[in-house]
Amino acid sequence: MKTEVLRYEADGLAMIGHLAWDEAASTPRPGVLVFPEAFGLGPHAKSRAERLASELGYVALACDLHGEQRIVSDLDAVRATLQPLRGDPAKVRARTRNALDALATRPQVDATRIAAMGFCFGGTMAYELALSGADIRAAIGFHSGLKVTAPGDAARIKGKVLALLGADDPGITPEDRAAFEAMLRAGRVDWQMTLYGGVVHSFTNPDADKLGRPEVLRYDAVADRRSWNQMRALLDEVFG
Amino acid sequence: MKTEVLRYEADGLAMIGHLAWDEAASTPRPGVLVFPEAFGLGPHAKSRAERLASELGYVALACDLHGEQRIVSDLDAVRATLQPLRGDPAKVRARTRNALDALATRPQVDATRIAAMGFCFGGTMAYELALSGADIRAAIGFHSGLKVTAPGDAARIKGKVLALLGADDPGITPEDRAAFEAMLRAGRVDWQMTLYGGVVHSFTNPDADKLGRPEVLRYDAVADRRSWNQMRALLDEVFG
Repeated sequence: MKTEVLRYEADGLAMIGHLAWDEAASTPRPGVLVFPEAFGLGPHAKSRAERLASELGYVALACDLHGEQRIVSDLDAVRATLQPLRGDPAKVRARTRNALDALATRPQVDATRIAAMGFCFGGTMAYELALSGADIRAAIGFHSGLKVTAPGDAARIKGKVLALLGADDPGITPEDRAAFEAMLRAGRVDWQMTLYGGVVHSFTNPDADKLGRPEVLRYDAVADRRSWNQMRALLDEVFG
Repeated sequence: MKTEVLRYEADGLAMIGHLAWDEAASTPRPGVLVFPEAFGLGPHAKSRAERLASELGYVALACDLHGEQRIVSDLDAVRATLQPLRGDPAKVRARTRNALDALATRPQVDATRIAAMGFCFGGTMAYELALSGADIRAAIGFHSGLKVTAPGDAARIKGKVLALLGADDPGITPEDRAAFEAMLRAGRVDWQMTLYGGVVHSFTNPDADKLGRPEVLRYDAVADRRSWNQMRALLDEVFG
């Protein structure tokens, strides 16, 4: 498995992505965009991109969020930083669209077979990319926020949607789930949603516990493994 | 793969089960109870038991429901037949408990590793068996009714629970899902629930379409495959 820095511009920001691929592959391989948690691109999303390459043979791009791989550690600062993206489809989708172009034009990638996934706000970004009508085969969100900028765009979604959620995530309410479900139903999307009981936010991120707020963010090894397996099954399905 | 008729008594009825196992196995294998749809034990649940044996190497018992392998074809008649089971924990669980004993005492079965699954009302029966405190490792329901006789028994559940549901199943409402979720949360159960978008009842049964009510019951090959894979992942997990 090889990695390299992949720079691209998006929404006026200088993005520094992290590309991972299996150099033993002799033909173009499916590509997967990996959008990080709201804090920005760090070890968690990078390591998942590397697993997509080393375990599954995909070309994976862990995407930058805030530009220059900036990490925003404070939860309140994260909220403030993301606020301008939450109500503006053009702005949030601009950060995803150029990542897609950056990945799709890599020589190791089969540009006809691309999916997007993400964690926390990165999952929302995967959904936003799908809502933009982009030609991606799947949009997969792990502990992903379900509030999107323009639910009325659901009919533009071309790929399959999979939401993998902690049932006790205080930031993703039953009302959010119901609204997301209604949006996908109205758009006649092929969608799945899995709830993991007793699980809260950030369940895929071993560093979540460092924040010391286990009632809100907490790593869960079992849900991490189960959700990874569900992601893998859907990627198998859509990439054939 | 071999099959044989397995007779047992339950709730005063003469049950005729269908046992399937891989005769090439040299050591006792995990056992899986398969409870059929509300119509009774027919080709659908039998074929699933055979797949559990031939594809996965488990010893599977497709269980009788109405006694003497009676099939009740009419939906209204089914409802009337099941009514006495819906409010009486002892009665419905009696039909599951003796099936468990019949399977667990087979020489080809490792009695310490047993799970229960079922379709439609059979899924509810798998949950009822778990609620009884039975020593099963998992209870898995496909398009399973979520109304159980005694939700307060949830703390007695020893195994993991997995509900696989059509999001548009008119017989399993969002309110049913919320109540089921609340029950499992209160019981501190390890549970998962997956919703399949655009999918209604009986999505695993190719014969569902024969009833001519596609808005209520309809086979869905994609959801059938996805849910089978999720079942398989959980059985892998709990049987080790």
